[in-house]
Amino acid sequence: MYKFSVTILGSSSAIPTSDRNPTAQLVNHNDRLFLLDCGEGTQVSLRKMHVHFQRINHIFISHLHGDHFFGLIGLISSMHLLGRSKALHVYGPPELEQILQIQLDVSLTVLSYSLIFHPTRSDIPELLFEDETVQVRSFPMLHRIPTTGFIFEEKAGDRRIRKELIELYQIPPHEIPLIRRGSDFLDSKGNLISNQELTIDPFIPRKYAFCSDTAYFEEIIDTVKGADLLYHETTFMQNRAQNAADKFHSTTFEAARIAQKAEVKKLLIGHYSARYDDLQPLLEEAQTIFPETLLASEGLTIEV
Amino acid sequence: MYKFSVTILGSSSAIPTSDRNPTAQLVNHNDRLFLLDCGEGTQVSLRKMHVHFQRINHIFISHLHGDHFFGLIGLISSMHLLGRSKALHVYGPPELEQILQIQLDVSLTVLSYSLIFHPTRSDIPELLFEDETVQVRSFPMLHRIPTTGFIFEEKAGDRRIRKELIELYQIPPHEIPLIRRGSDFLDSKGNLISNQELTIDPFIPRKYAFCSDTAYFEEIIDTVKGADLLYHETTFMQNRAQNAADKFHSTTFEAARIAQKAEVKKLLIGHYSARYDDLQPLLEEAQTIFPETLLASEGLTIEV
Repeated sequence: MYKFSVTILGSSSAIPTSDRNPTAQLVNHNDRLFLLDCGEGTQVSLRKMHVHFQRINHIFISHLHGDHFFGLIGLISSMHLLGRSKALHVYGPPELEQILQIQLDVSLTVLSYSLIFHPTRSDIPELLFEDETVQVRSFPMLHRIPTTGFIFEEKAGDRRIRKELIELYQIPPHEIPLIRRGSDFLDSKGNLISNQELTIDPFIPRKYAFCSDTAYFEEIIDTVKGADLLYHETTFMQNRAQNAADKFHSTTFEAARIAQKAEVKKLLIGHYSARYDDLQPLLEEAQTIFPETLLASEGLTIEV
Repeated sequence: MYKFSVTILGSSSAIPTSDRNPTAQLVNHNDRLFLLDCGEGTQVSLRKMHVHFQRINHIFISHLHGDHFFGLIGLISSMHLLGRSKALHVYGPPELEQILQIQLDVSLTVLSYSLIFHPTRSDIPELLFEDETVQVRSFPMLHRIPTTGFIFEEKAGDRRIRKELIELYQIPPHEIPLIRRGSDFLDSKGNLISNQELTIDPFIPRKYAFCSDTAYFEEIIDTVKGADLLYHETTFMQNRAQNAADKFHSTTFEAARIAQKAEVKKLLIGHYSARYDDLQPLLEEAQTIFPETLLASEGLTIEV
């Protein structure tokens, strides 16, 4: 099973506090690092967590409210100053490209690496990235300005060979990929060993969905259906539902209802208003509807 | 004597480290707060130091390398989100205005306060701000892109009345401002009391000069002459003088020589390369030329 984890770099909403940073999350899939949003201070958070940030090759920006992207230009600059040569892919709303470019231009900076910008659309889902093990798609959210969520979905893997049988039947290395894909095996004595005996089922592909920022929006349910982990913003408690609606944000109950209706395994809440010092009440309120709720907090790593 | 202090919010050069922030300094003159440069994370540093940042009305940006301004848009946004109504004055290179505006535009932000932008020139000195007690001027530095230093100069104050004499000679309140400006006093019995008896000399006006970033540049000496405190960047130790020259930065010796030639009272060094963990060798090297040298460090407050 591949490593598949999410590390919280920032759990605050628009205004950072002295102990909560604006939104940023690091996804590690199979030791490939992906960054989701990049609020101010993200590069320093990465350093403090001893993440070698040159290993990040793909950065996804959900929307252009500052608490989701003001740290991007600083990270891009530091990658340059530290001599990066590998290409960096940035996915985000089209206007982001100019915002980055103008800031590089005024400092006469010609990056030491290729910055490949992929404009995203907020009206339709898109496949943004794919390799042999995972794909990343965007999908529309409901917010004051164009905003997307992102979903990481593992690809179905091969069947897993029972290692002890490799020696027992003296299976040569070149046969192993075939057996993983379902072949039986004919041993040197002419006995046919069935694939059913040789292998066990593949790992079940996992899903991580990142939904920040959004009002309560049932259209996302199909996309995030059955996710192993759903991050859904929870800016306010339920007694501020009107406030949340006015600002196109969500409450504890709303995040929990999406989790419930989408039948996800776990809900991770975050993007807390600076008004909340103690987050326990938010957790407890969400858990009344969806018990498998977790609180995002700086430095927390969750296995998907 | 007015309060006149400088608080270091960031002492690192281009790449922030886990314990050093990019450049930002808070000047408190007579309980008016001024911000000098605004690297990424400045708003959080202000919070951590319990500075109520809505009290800052004037922000001066020396140049458009990211480590001197990437935190500005976040601070401006947070001031807005927290409901600021007072005008904010920002002084900096002309291109900064568009960089700020484009980022406000994409988030459909109409600020709750007036942001008054004052473009600076890097080819001539300019008077940027003046009130009854202090003036702030910019002056050209020598760097890869247009850059200015800033100097805070107190105005010569009035003579100071000897308080014990007010009662003794029954000086009426309306006479006091006149005496402060040099008048003698005629008491009710017709005796003339000389101003020399009534007053002592005014406080000597103080000067704080902020020089970041710059190569060794003797043309600043006249401007910073006799400053009570000179901040001069010191990115490198002397064995990296060529490196410093190539990048239009300064070494310990160069900062100390400017301090010596300008006959300032104290030199404050900072903007340290991330390569230096231990700063003591930089201090000691500068002190071989200019003994009254201090190390900038996050949270340090120095009385001018």
